[in-house]
Amino acid sequence: MAKSRFEYVKQFELEDILLPRCWIVIRLDGKGFTRFSEKHSFKKPNDDRALLLMNRCAVEVLREFQDIRIAFGESDEYSFVFSKTSTLYGRRSSKLVSLVTSCFTANYVRWWPEYLPSQPLQSTPVFDGRAVCYPSDEILRDYLSWRQADTHINNQYNTCFWALVHSGKSHTEAQERLKGTLTEHKNELLFSEFGISYTKLPAMYRKGSVVIWSQELKTVKHTEDGTPVQRKVCEPLVCHDDIIGEKFWLSHQEILKC
Amino acid sequence: MAKSRFEYVKQFELEDILLPRCWIVIRLDGKGFTRFSEKHSFKKPNDDRALLLMNRCAVEVLREFQDIRIAFGESDEYSFVFSKTSTLYGRRSSKLVSLVTSCFTANYVRWWPEYLPSQPLQSTPVFDGRAVCYPSDEILRDYLSWRQADTHINNQYNTCFWALVHSGKSHTEAQERLKGTLTEHKNELLFSEFGISYTKLPAMYRKGSVVIWSQELKTVKHTEDGTPVQRKVCEPLVCHDDIIGEKFWLSHQEILKC
Amino acid sequence: MAKSRFEYVKQFELEDILLPRCWIVIRLDGKGFTRFSEKHSFKKPNDDRALLLMNRCAVEVLREFQDIRIAFGESDEYSFVFSKTSTLYGRRSSKLVSLVTSCFTANYVRWWPEYLPSQPLQSTPVFDGRAVCYPSDEILRDYLSWRQADTHINNQYNTCFWALVHSGKSHTEAQERLKGTLTEHKNELLFSEFGISYTKLPAMYRKGSVVIWSQELKTVKHTEDGTPVQRKVCEPLVCHDDIIGEKFWLSHQEILKC
Amino acid sequence: MAKSRFEYVKQFELEDILLPRCWIVIRLDGKGFTRFSEKHSFKKPNDDRALLLMNRCAVEVLREFQDIRIAFGESDEYSFVFSKTSTLYGRRSSKLVSLVTSCFTANYVRWWPEYLPSQPLQSTPVFDGRAVCYPSDEILRDYLSWRQADTHINNQYNTCFWALVHSGKSHTEAQERLKGTLTEHKNELLFSEFGISYTKLPAMYRKGSVVIWSQELKTVKHTEDGTPVQRKVCEPLVCHDDIIGEKFWLSHQEILKC
Repeated sequence: MAKSRFEYVKQFELEDILLPRCWIVIRLDGKGFTRFSEKHSFKKPNDDRALLLMNRCAVEVLREFQDIRIAFGESDEYSFVFSKTSTLYGRRSSKLVSLVTSCFTANYVRWWPEYLPSQPLQSTPVFDGRAVCYPSDEILRDYLSWRQADTHINNQYNTCFWALVHSGKSHTEAQERLKGTLTEHKNELLFSEFGISYTKLPAMYRKGSVVIWSQELKTVKHTEDGTPVQRKVCEPLVCHDDIIGEKFWLSHQEILKC
Repeated sequence: MAKSRFEYVKQFELEDILLPRCWIVIRLDGKGFTRFSEKHSFKKPNDDRALLLMNRCAVEVLREFQDIRIAFGESDEYSFVFSKTSTLYGRRSSKLVSLVTSCFTANYVRWWPEYLPSQPLQSTPVFDGRAVCYPSDEILRDYLSWRQADTHINNQYNTCFWALVHSGKSHTEAQERLKGTLTEHKNELLFSEFGISYTKLPAMYRKGSVVIWSQELKTVKHTEDGTPVQRKVCEPLVCHDDIIGEKFWLSHQEILKC
Repeated sequence: MAKSRFEYVKQFELEDILLPRCWIVIRLDGKGFTRFSEKHSFKKPNDDRALLLMNRCAVEVLREFQDIRIAFGESDEYSFVFSKTSTLYGRRSSKLVSLVTSCFTANYVRWWPEYLPSQPLQSTPVFDGRAVCYPSDEILRDYLSWRQADTHINNQYNTCFWALVHSGKSHTEAQERLKGTLTEHKNELLFSEFGISYTKLPAMYRKGSVVIWSQELKTVKHTEDGTPVQRKVCEPLVCHDDIIGEKFWLSHQEILKC
Repeated sequence: MAKSRFEYVKQFELEDILLPRCWIVIRLDGKGFTRFSEKHSFKKPNDDRALLLMNRCAVEVLREFQDIRIAFGESDEYSFVFSKTSTLYGRRSSKLVSLVTSCFTANYVRWWPEYLPSQPLQSTPVFDGRAVCYPSDEILRDYLSWRQADTHINNQYNTCFWALVHSGKSHTEAQERLKGTLTEHKNELLFSEFGISYTKLPAMYRKGSVVIWSQELKTVKHTEDGTPVQRKVCEPLVCHDDIIGEKFWLSHQEILKC
């Protein structure tokens, strides 16, 4: 059985290297999650259990790929930002996209019972992924701002929409009611009609979730006389900070450092 | 919060369309599965439970992506062949690679307890994926032959290696013993020293697993008087046929048909 | 002066290899040739001198790149088809595109005075180029048919348009007159109004130009007693055959042979 | 003649857009110029006429593509740097590569008689081209430094080599003599054996050629009473400055400005 006769087929695998010294964003998106979330009775507009499961997956992805500097998630999507100097897997696009997507998905199924114990999986959750390069810190920040601004816009709309629906309106009526309304009006509507103060909603809903590395002192062992030996370890940390303004970046300068 | 100011970052997402009218192979590979298989006490050289789980995942992938014509798996890898006329997701490479990898991985974790009930997951299984285009039927067949020839070579080596190890040799001794041996000698060694007739080993070990579509008559409902109403349905079917020779392709001409 | 400190910039040159075993078409197009042809008083709708110069350039390109199997030209464009098994320059797209474009352009300027002796160059002619892969013989033939069908459509329109203009109509009037007319009507118009029998126009205008390799006996030297020594040599040959139908391909089976 | 039946072949033209907001370098290289320069008796190690012709072509390329910010040339190669914000031809790689290469080549042939009047073209000069993206100003400067450092290294070697050859050594002897010599030794050798003070050689040989835009006052017309009307115009300017150090970039901050 001549193996070598077929070996030539390997040359059809073409290189797909991402430009060096650019930030690499791998963005994942749930496939058909509108349907998936209905099937699993996700609370609308936001289901804490589902969001916390997403965050847990992101934390596990950071643990697996330590070249990730920051991640941002909302709803059924998550973006992972690899250091611009990362040379992981030779910066091959399909390697990075597939591994991150696979790792995230595997954790989603693995930890599902821990976050939604009363809700057995009815169908298999699937995510797609893509890689995008950003050549400068400024543009990378604009990318992250784009996602966080999007989170706000979607959440504000969804909060209104579901408040109307829960109050008895049909989906179509709710849509009609919101057509063309501006940001200010939506907050007003929420307050006047439903007594909801938008800015007091949980930050996770309004700002999405940010995962960064945090240095912590961890007791790694005890000496014979019982004294704890501590070491600084890096652990992924989830927060819901504003990442559009300067403040966050001033307090976390290590994220963009090379 | 001006969303539009950030929207320009979308233009950094570049197209990665796979050449039309080529066969698209998406090949998945387990990441660090040597370690993963040890941690989960996979039987060596072949663990039926693990192989059947891989096959189950492949079947689920075919159910999800019906443009797949044939799949081939061995050990911790699986190749999925999309029809050359498929326009699924506009033939975008990262979409196809990530979705197939994600779907496979999700099923791997989801159905793990069914196939390895006594073996809880100790770590998260991760797969990488890549897309390769093959411009002709002939080259596609050479690709599949390459993988099946590889299955044989690996399995023969592994069967010898683990027979030696199970007989008391160290890993290094087993390696030394096999260095430079030819196919004929390996079969002889297996037979004379261990009484193993290589060709009588299960086809799944020697030939890998092939998944194709099979038309079956299925009872879809019963009429009022109880008569079963049947319909032809396509279902993924796993077999372990030789796909290097002509015979398989003559009996399954629909696979390569456009 | 540390050279090595800067060498890292080489890694930004990413691979752009064209899929193996596909036909490679390099198509060139004149940049701004409407203006260029006016400036150099090209005869309308077809200027023999300009077309013959294009053909000469194509011939020189074939002489330089012998992996080209066939070329097709019309107006200010030319397509060069590299053998699907060609490995010239490792099938790097930018190498092939730039070299073919450069070679064509250099010859265009070099041989201009020979073809348009009374017309000195007033500006610099520039061509763009692109590479396209075609996975099968059938699709390659459809590509070439597409270009030849386009030649016919353009030439028929232009012949009508310029006949109207030369008869005293303005450009706008000529356009108006032709809006929405079908193929049959255009030929009728040409015949009834201008006595032009379309099918009797030169094949070069109607069918474009095809360059293939032709084997010729060539006298390479003479023996002492004066006997000519002949050898078969391959030389590019320009013809204006129909390449849409079967006939051409039956008589020139070597073009698509691997 | 159904045009539409063939139109599908257009979809095989895949996008090759260069990452936005990166500097685009198009680098050209003469094909087989060792042979070309011998055939046309170029003076060794540097032929002023040939270098000035290269520079003239570069100037014409800048005139044609005003998004070019700076160009650098040495020997038979030239690099053109497009503004990182350029959207010329949608940043399509093959468009940019082919047009720049074609424009350069056309000018090379067109202006050849002006720069080498006594030397008719014996063969057709051909250049290849490639596109490379650089994500930051700093890396772009390193690219340019790399080319200028290379100019120095090559020129120093060639100056020694040809001095030895012109003094009667064979090519092989000259190579042997220079094997492994360091920069300092080469300058010493030139001075002690040939009385050549390396640093006094023309800057064009040692530093290569830099083309930038220069603002000049130009008389565009005269008023009725004869007063000249002047306007600032941008014209390409060739210099031979050091572009590795800071000084050049401090005096030409407009080059990197967005």
